[in-house]
Amino acid sequence: MIPETTHEELDTVLTRAAEAAEPFGALAPADRARLLNAVADALDAAAAELVPLAIAESNLSEGRLTGELKRTTFQLRMFAEVLDEGRYLEATIDRADPDFALGPKPDLRRVQLPIGPVLVFAASNFPFAFSVAGGDTASALAAGCPVVLKAHPGHPELSVRTGEVIVEALRAAGAPEGAFAVVLGVETGTRALTDERVKAASFTGSVPGGRALFDIAAQRPKPIPFFGELGSLNPVFVTPAALEERGAELAQGYVTSFSGNAGQLCTKPGVLLLPAGHGLDEELAAATRNVGPHRLLNERLHGGYCDRRAAVTSVPGVRVLAEGSAPGDAAEGATPTLLETSAETLLAHRDELLEEVFGPLSVVVTYGSEEELLEVAAALEGNLTATVQHAEDETTDLARLLGVLRERAGRVLCNGWPTGVSPSPAMQHGGPYPSTTDARFTSVGTAAIDRFLRPVTFQNTPQELLPRPLRDDNPWGVPQAVHGPR
Amino acid sequence: MIPETTHEELDTVLTRAAEAAEPFGALAPADRARLLNAVADALDAAAAELVPLAIAESNLSEGRLTGELKRTTFQLRMFAEVLDEGRYLEATIDRADPDFALGPKPDLRRVQLPIGPVLVFAASNFPFAFSVAGGDTASALAAGCPVVLKAHPGHPELSVRTGEVIVEALRAAGAPEGAFAVVLGVETGTRALTDERVKAASFTGSVPGGRALFDIAAQRPKPIPFFGELGSLNPVFVTPAALEERGAELAQGYVTSFSGNAGQLCTKPGVLLLPAGHGLDEELAAATRNVGPHRLLNERLHGGYCDRRAAVTSVPGVRVLAEGSAPGDAAEGATPTLLETSAETLLAHRDELLEEVFGPLSVVVTYGSEEELLEVAAALEGNLTATVQHAEDETTDLARLLGVLRERAGRVLCNGWPTGVSPSPAMQHGGPYPSTTDARFTSVGTAAIDRFLRPVTFQNTPQELLPRPLRDDNPWGVPQAVHGPR
Repeated sequence: MIPETTHEELDTVLTRAAEAAEPFGALAPADRARLLNAVADALDAAAAELVPLAIAESNLSEGRLTGELKRTTFQLRMFAEVLDEGRYLEATIDRADPDFALGPKPDLRRVQLPIGPVLVFAASNFPFAFSVAGGDTASALAAGCPVVLKAHPGHPELSVRTGEVIVEALRAAGAPEGAFAVVLGVETGTRALTDERVKAASFTGSVPGGRALFDIAAQRPKPIPFFGELGSLNPVFVTPAALEERGAELAQGYVTSFSGNAGQLCTKPGVLLLPAGHGLDEELAAATRNVGPHRLLNERLHGGYCDRRAAVTSVPGVRVLAEGSAPGDAAEGATPTLLETSAETLLAHRDELLEEVFGPLSVVVTYGSEEELLEVAAALEGNLTATVQHAEDETTDLARLLGVLRERAGRVLCNGWPTGVSPSPAMQHGGPYPSTTDARFTSVGTAAIDRFLRPVTFQNTPQELLPRPLRDDNPWGVPQAVHGPR
Repeated sequence: MIPETTHEELDTVLTRAAEAAEPFGALAPADRARLLNAVADALDAAAAELVPLAIAESNLSEGRLTGELKRTTFQLRMFAEVLDEGRYLEATIDRADPDFALGPKPDLRRVQLPIGPVLVFAASNFPFAFSVAGGDTASALAAGCPVVLKAHPGHPELSVRTGEVIVEALRAAGAPEGAFAVVLGVETGTRALTDERVKAASFTGSVPGGRALFDIAAQRPKPIPFFGELGSLNPVFVTPAALEERGAELAQGYVTSFSGNAGQLCTKPGVLLLPAGHGLDEELAAATRNVGPHRLLNERLHGGYCDRRAAVTSVPGVRVLAEGSAPGDAAEGATPTLLETSAETLLAHRDELLEEVFGPLSVVVTYGSEEELLEVAAALEGNLTATVQHAEDETTDLARLLGVLRERAGRVLCNGWPTGVSPSPAMQHGGPYPSTTDARFTSVGTAAIDRFLRPVTFQNTPQELLPRPLRDDNPWGVPQAVHGPR
């Protein structure tokens, strides 16, 4: 049993983080890149120790966790490249202009600076990639912000050990003390969130948990940015033409996507819209029954899943395609459940049916007309993703459908499945509420670094006092956007 | 007397704004640029009508208001250029990569889309540039967001008339109905802020007013971004070397900066840090007494100013350098008041002395040592600006001082005055709380458009269904950042 962080310990962690902010933020990007690469190397080297810990605490498979650790160190190295590239600094120079239209303009130079110590609430469902060494940590460290990592109670041993690997790697590579620390305990997290030394926070988890923390952040005497990734339904819309072209393939692909990792992915498709009379019931049921039992991440989630499954199943007009299991003993694991209903029922029971079920359950929804399809699309809350399965030759007005979906999602997919989120420059993992609390930002991909930066302008400042990215001699060789007369 | 907007009228305005969001946002940037230029032209053409209205309702001078209208139309045309340039779309393309390190990667394309209808709360102190046709309106319209403008009660007639000019110009230029509307009434504003059709809001005004609205925005069932510019002290630090080099010039420059427009600027310097024994008392007092009376914007502000002036003046250890006036009859106008105290007193009475006084009052603060100077810097709340007046040859550790100030301000100035904010690419008008509610964004300069945009990624989407900025043939000719294999 790993003890929770005491108030005194938390105070020490926050003091060290606040003290580290200046020296850590002042490092040259290449030096912070070196630190990120050192952390990635150390985690890769510790894989044989960390993966078994993760298996024991998450019930996820070795293959999945080995891949996830690889993704985690990939992300750290990706942010090292972001630092080497330097565009994230958005260095902008407006040279003085005595002839400016509104009167003489001074020399103005704007750059992104680290926002300060960041509190990261780790997720349960990705013990590596959205946890201690995950994308939030990587992007915050890359930005130059010390990180206080509040471990998820689902995998405490892994969290502590991963934290030790990170701290040791940072120390060996010469990082300032206090740039990273792991803390434990629910109350520790909320206490830290109200502390003035914390300047931003991020979170991945449930809607109620995330909203409670968002409210705390917003109600501080000095509010701070809070990036919460909460719940998402991730609907998939199949057109009649796509059904005709590849119905069986879609049935199998959908079941694979919603049931993988026991449905415990933030982009798991929660509903599949199919034309009425689709004729795929048997294929969908068979594919679902074909999936073996999978233990959920922990007993609390198992219990929550069983409750939500019972509630959704009991909505009048919802029928069972594949019953699956949700046994009283979490250790037995759950097999996936597939339900079916009509668009009419979905629209009549939005509170139950348009809300995420975290776990291996999904709902097939039949629609009678294109208008009904659009009505369902328009009824959606904010989502991380929305997917359209279409054919080459379409009668469905895809432009109209995509126009509705892009207002309700951060990522719109065609002919793919929403699970699988590539960490790359064009990725957006963040959509309208409740999928995230701030749809202007992403938690996956290179743009995730933008969450932890704040612009500052320097006016008429002597060269030697300017931050290096703003100097004329550009010692770090970063991209500079230069405006005004030369 | 102009009546307040009724609930029914507001509902109609919001419905029209929501309906306009899609067609207005879908316009090509060049077409929205044309609309912005048409609005600018119409406002310039209406100057002879609008400026006298502004004088009558704001007590500001004709010269100031004529210049402010020029600034306002400059800003509209500046955002037209931002649209023509297209970089604000941040079009990013990751080509599909079958050999991606984490497994085959789909085609991903990310672009900034308008966030939806924006509610703008106009300011009192800039009847043009931060009001109906101000920077918030210009940047939101540029982003493709319909604007619902809540008029400031200080200048209702000007607001309504400016709104008519804008609506007429937009209509004549072919904009969708509902892209812009003016509403009136305090309760109208808060009602609109809770309406689900409003997707973001901006505000310029007082700390209590702005915080109350921020709280409403954050507590909505679906929170929305709220960009509030609240209060700022805008401290100026004079080094001993600068005092020695140009003390008299600094005294005059400071008085001009803090007393201009009756001190009713968000960047008015509220405190001037001078070395103890500076010997400028007489010059400062004489320059202050030299400034004639100026009516404040309205009676409410006049009353608030008189109260704050009395409170600050009565702090033990504060003495009067130039008493100025704050007459019972607001029509008489106020002459500027200059006070003096020590850094010790300032630090002992932070609540009174480190909080903005809106109006023609400022405080000279003497410091005994460089350590004390840094202590004052470190005690500052968040500010829009912080200024250092230094000399060529310095003994003061300017790097250390600027390091402290940049953590507490959005703009750091050397050897200038904070009043006067150039609308340009490198401007940052937004600092840590309470100067703004979100220091990651600016309300002045081209980057102000970023507040009203939200990224969406399109995955494996056919060319004809992609937003134009993401298409391979790039019909709008916008900058595209392309990654991955060609």
